Amino acid sequence: MRIVIALGGNALLRRGEALSSENQRQNTREACRQIAKAYEGNQLIITHGNGPQVGLMALQSNAYKGVPMYPLDVLGAESVGMIGYMIQQELVNAVPKSASLATILTQTEVDPKDPAFQRPTKPVGPVYTKEEADQVAAEKGWAMAPDNDRYRRVVASPLPKRIFGLKPLQNLIDHGYIVICAGGGGIPTYYDEQGMLCGAEAVIDKDLATALLAVSVDADLLVIATDVDGAYIDWGKPGQKRIAQADTEAITQFGFAQGSMGPKVQAAINFAKASGKVAVIGALQDIEQIIAGRAGTRITDQVKGVVYA
Amino acid sequence: MRIVIALGGNALLRRGEALSSENQRQNTREACRQIAKAYEGNQLIITHGNGPQVGLMALQSNAYKGVPMYPLDVLGAESVGMIGYMIQQELVNAVPKSASLATILTQTEVDPKDPAFQRPTKPVGPVYTKEEADQVAAEKGWAMAPDNDRYRRVVASPLPKRIFGLKPLQNLIDHGYIVICAGGGGIPTYYDEQGMLCGAEAVIDKDLATALLAVSVDADLLVIATDVDGAYIDWGKPGQKRIAQADTEAITQFGFAQGSMGPKVQAAINFAKASGKVAVIGALQDIEQIIAGRAGTRITDQVKGVVYA
Repeated sequence: MRIVIALGGNALLRRGEALSSENQRQNTREACRQIAKAYEGNQLIITHGNGPQVGLMALQSNAYKGVPMYPLDVLGAESVGMIGYMIQQELVNAVPKSASLATILTQTEVDPKDPAFQRPTKPVGPVYTKEEADQVAAEKGWAMAPDNDRYRRVVASPLPKRIFGLKPLQNLIDHGYIVICAGGGGIPTYYDEQGMLCGAEAVIDKDLATALLAVSVDADLLVIATDVDGAYIDWGKPGQKRIAQADTEAITQFGFAQGSMGPKVQAAINFAKASGKVAVIGALQDIEQIIAGRAGTRITDQVKGVVYA
Repeated sequence: MRIVIALGGNALLRRGEALSSENQRQNTREACRQIAKAYEGNQLIITHGNGPQVGLMALQSNAYKGVPMYPLDVLGAESVGMIGYMIQQELVNAVPKSASLATILTQTEVDPKDPAFQRPTKPVGPVYTKEEADQVAAEKGWAMAPDNDRYRRVVASPLPKRIFGLKPLQNLIDHGYIVICAGGGGIPTYYDEQGMLCGAEAVIDKDLATALLAVSVDADLLVIATDVDGAYIDWGKPGQKRIAQADTEAITQFGFAQGSMGPKVQAAINFAKASGKVAVIGALQDIEQIIAGRAGTRITDQVKGVVYA
């Protein structure tokens, strides 16, 4: 099977942990040990988030005053280099010696007319006082939004339209190489009015981008790996129930929180609808059971209705 | 022809320029316009340096006190993400629409017993006072060396032994994709005593690593691109002469400065000897003339002796 696995931010950095290199390394190692269980007999494509990491790059770039702060697309590329390297190195340690892998720096096309650019919502980088926020907004044209009693820059999260470089990517997958790609959902890129590629100072939802990638490379299974074992109804309430399986229409009856389960469910729906295949939201440590069809929340139109765990 | 082009640090950042994102972007754009002239009828593999950029990452990581400073291998991976992204985006703008390209994050094997680890010489990152230098040396076990009236960390520059991930790389080249890889000479990596891959806090000479890569992928031509039009004897003196061509033995009679032309000449020798083909040191804007055999300093054993320009 050709399996695309999206590693959530929480697979690489547990909630509340300091964003140190050591913590990232340790979590990446553990994540790669889990991924390796899916290697035998399958073609693996790994994607990953970069939310906390691109935030760190922004803080570091802001803290050093020798040169102006770097734009978000470039910081995103830095974070993808960092995370891709750690995954690549730890995955080599976890899979059989005969496996070969490649980490591809990916750009994702966004539409500069995407309405998300008119209402940026994703906070990134340092916290500013009101005065600093006004100044930086005037200087750089950034959108700023309140963050507790301070202010932070907010950027758009436009929809991913297209994964660039699919041909070489497809080639590597076809030849059985493990591919790490579309880190952070891919670096947001658009064509300007002269038809030139440019970086967009935006962030892309990595699950939506991964779903698009999975459709584009004709994957058999999309696994959206997170730190919970599936999508729940009445999450956090006494009667909470895991959805074991649902079709793409039935799943929409449940409201899932934006910014946590919502985009994952949407990404799973997108893949299941476009491919006719199965997307699973689940915990990375259940990867073998997920592939066997016995864990996570499976979203597919192959079977109609809702099944609870 | 299969051509490997190594982009020197000075192709991406001119001497003395501030290391701003804008400067890097502009220089990268110009470099990519030159590279594009070599596209027609050739297979291109692009590598690049990262010296100033990894230095910037170290300064930024050091300036932000929220988490401990990141290790050099990880900072190197960040810099490679940044540079690879800029080259990829600008190269897409410069080559015909029919071209496809892929940027591969590369690891390069070094020997943990390389004598270079016993005498680290390459300064990286921030400048410290004597007291700070002593403290940071004690805390982190870093080697420190005088730098004017202050101190800086110095790291080893071990020899590249092997480029990892050659199979997928070769596959992409064979299929005619432009490949950007081995950024910064590849991230220095070694096997520890348990046989696990680890990052080394070191830097790799990108020209030596590129020569190794060029041999490994069976390149026809290695172009070491810099901001001068070749290797000179009596450089900077009234009688300075460009060497137009030399065999690998003849070229060793001239002493070239370590840290500038020396490693480039050594890399060219390594490639010419191992492959029996031609390595050229020259200016990127002469790329067409270099490929046609009419510019730069050509090092090869196909013709014996020395020819001056």
